[in-house]
Amino acid sequence: MKVGGIPYRAIFTERDGTEVRVIDQTLLPHRFETIRLDSPADAARAIRDMVVRGAPLIGATAAYGVALAMRADPSDASLDQAVALLASTRPTAVNLKWALDAAGVLLRALPPSERAPAAYDFAARLCEDDVHRNRSIGEHGLGIFREIAAKAGTGGPRRELNVMTHCNAGWLATVDWGTATAPMYLAHDEGLRIHVWVRETRPRFQGAGLTAWELGQHGVPHTLVSDSAAGYLLSRGKVDLVIVGTDRTTAAGDVANKVGTYPLALTARDNGVPFYVAAPSPSIDWTIKDGASIPIEERDPEEVTRVWGIDEEGVERRVRVVPEGTRAANYAFDVTPRRLVTGLVTERGVCAAESGALKRMLERPERQQK
Amino acid sequence: MKVGGIPYRAIFTERDGTEVRVIDQTLLPHRFETIRLDSPADAARAIRDMVVRGAPLIGATAAYGVALAMRADPSDASLDQAVALLASTRPTAVNLKWALDAAGVLLRALPPSERAPAAYDFAARLCEDDVHRNRSIGEHGLGIFREIAAKAGTGGPRRELNVMTHCNAGWLATVDWGTATAPMYLAHDEGLRIHVWVRETRPRFQGAGLTAWELGQHGVPHTLVSDSAAGYLLSRGKVDLVIVGTDRTTAAGDVANKVGTYPLALTARDNGVPFYVAAPSPSIDWTIKDGASIPIEERDPEEVTRVWGIDEEGVERRVRVVPEGTRAANYAFDVTPRRLVTGLVTERGVCAAESGALKRMLERPERQQK
Repeated sequence: MKVGGIPYRAIFTERDGTEVRVIDQTLLPHRFETIRLDSPADAARAIRDMVVRGAPLIGATAAYGVALAMRADPSDASLDQAVALLASTRPTAVNLKWALDAAGVLLRALPPSERAPAAYDFAARLCEDDVHRNRSIGEHGLGIFREIAAKAGTGGPRRELNVMTHCNAGWLATVDWGTATAPMYLAHDEGLRIHVWVRETRPRFQGAGLTAWELGQHGVPHTLVSDSAAGYLLSRGKVDLVIVGTDRTTAAGDVANKVGTYPLALTARDNGVPFYVAAPSPSIDWTIKDGASIPIEERDPEEVTRVWGIDEEGVERRVRVVPEGTRAANYAFDVTPRRLVTGLVTERGVCAAESGALKRMLERPERQQK
Repeated sequence: MKVGGIPYRAIFTERDGTEVRVIDQTLLPHRFETIRLDSPADAARAIRDMVVRGAPLIGATAAYGVALAMRADPSDASLDQAVALLASTRPTAVNLKWALDAAGVLLRALPPSERAPAAYDFAARLCEDDVHRNRSIGEHGLGIFREIAAKAGTGGPRRELNVMTHCNAGWLATVDWGTATAPMYLAHDEGLRIHVWVRETRPRFQGAGLTAWELGQHGVPHTLVSDSAAGYLLSRGKVDLVIVGTDRTTAAGDVANKVGTYPLALTARDNGVPFYVAAPSPSIDWTIKDGASIPIEERDPEEVTRVWGIDEEGVERRVRVVPEGTRAANYAFDVTPRRLVTGLVTERGVCAAESGALKRMLERPERQQK
């Protein structure tokens, strides 16, 4: 997607195709800078320090980390060391583990002289798969947008289609397009007039800092609101549909996503507003049946008690918003039961969030897709 | 309630009973200071600059502003000038208008020589009425707390009763006790073990800054969470009941309160958790029948885009959390339909939120109360 009019991806290669660059997301939204990754250690640091975040982007960065190792030294020892180093960065990230395992198997089967180009190819393919998958989600989502706009008589010059989203399921969390944002970018690029209500997404402000930045850079009209404003907006007819991403979706269709998603789904339901979840197939966890058994990460309470931003002189600062010593708790996710989800938007199409529907859709041969 | 072990009210007199002091709420939670009001101009400034806030406290401050005018000069001109000045501070505050009208009628009927003591008496009575009303709400609320604790087997040494609240319907918004907080203080003081989940209440952080401060100073156990965490907490059985305040309740029982209240009520309902509203009779608007017709104030978007706090060196700062130039909207209230309200806790008792119930309860002669 575009930054200041120029198309970017969240990770990309330059020059001879071996120089790897990422956007430094720790500086957003206040500064836009890309940094070069020269070694697996650079890639590991970028993942650990959250220079890159989002499961697909973490996987892609790890794959390029292996390629950088092979460029410098394609030996078995170098490969093992790079994989071990990169695997240690975010131990629970599922795409990271998958990318490293697959790269390891592939490269170990090759003579050292062939490993560097094969590793770059693997990383590039992994990125292309992500872009293709997200674009497909975008196309299926765009179909929904068009349908709702046609019914409501919106999306044209008279009135825009009002979409609400939560957190950042945007291109910054992937290689490009994002998941929940993919249909927004497609709609905007194809002239369907949309406006996005961006929830700020406390405590880390990923809506305010990342989604608002993404949409603004690409030129998609949007308005930032506090998370609590959703009830007002939905009850007064100011939202035509809600679409969010997912961290993990059970085989039955229960959706774990950034905390605040479940009350948003309830509020949409209470007002008859459709609630969609953009769910790429790698986010589906076939091992968990029931949403209530998904473990919920508890993060550092300082994310709640302290806020990071930029002061009037342009200096980055962290300020405390509570009395000294106040106890806080920081639950990162909640689970939206499938009864509240109008549909799951996968790369293979849109399906009902009900037991079995996901499996049936994703197991269907590709050519039978509608 | 207590501050650092010492009982305080949000407004009080000292020495010979004519010196008026208030807590400077613009400095909370980072500094606790009281300031002396010496003139009607001081009182007007305190109201306008939100040194004092909350409808009952604004009314009390205005009444003392008139008393200060009468102490200095009890003439008709002085009275008219003080009333006009104080009325201009927050034009929509209903308690302010009522207090000034009542004081004006009372004092104009008296010879100037009797006006100063009468004005102080009037202000003191107005404060006592507020304290009495809130304490009654506290007692009726405590009955509910006890009932729920008994059913759930909580409130004793084994497990505390978990109460959730939103925004600040605390003693800082009144003269003492607060409304939603009154049963919490009574419960705590009488040895019913409670723990309060305090929602931070974006965008102005009145939960984080005021409710957490109040409860902390009085020693009531509490934990601060982001507004979005309510869905997680309610769905995992970590909340026994919710109680909030109200800015305006219709005769039919629809509740306008700080934005975010309506999704909270929905989430409580979805999980079978009782949802109560502390509604003192002056907050009931008999002129509005339908909650959907309550006008919703739209406030400065900078409250969403900029956050005020204290940095690591103890300096107060305001930081921007969004990209420069991001459009934001700031809706201050939402309306919770009466179907989601388990009960309204008034000073006359608890009643169902349904058309007519409020009127029947508040018109009942006092002695017939249960």
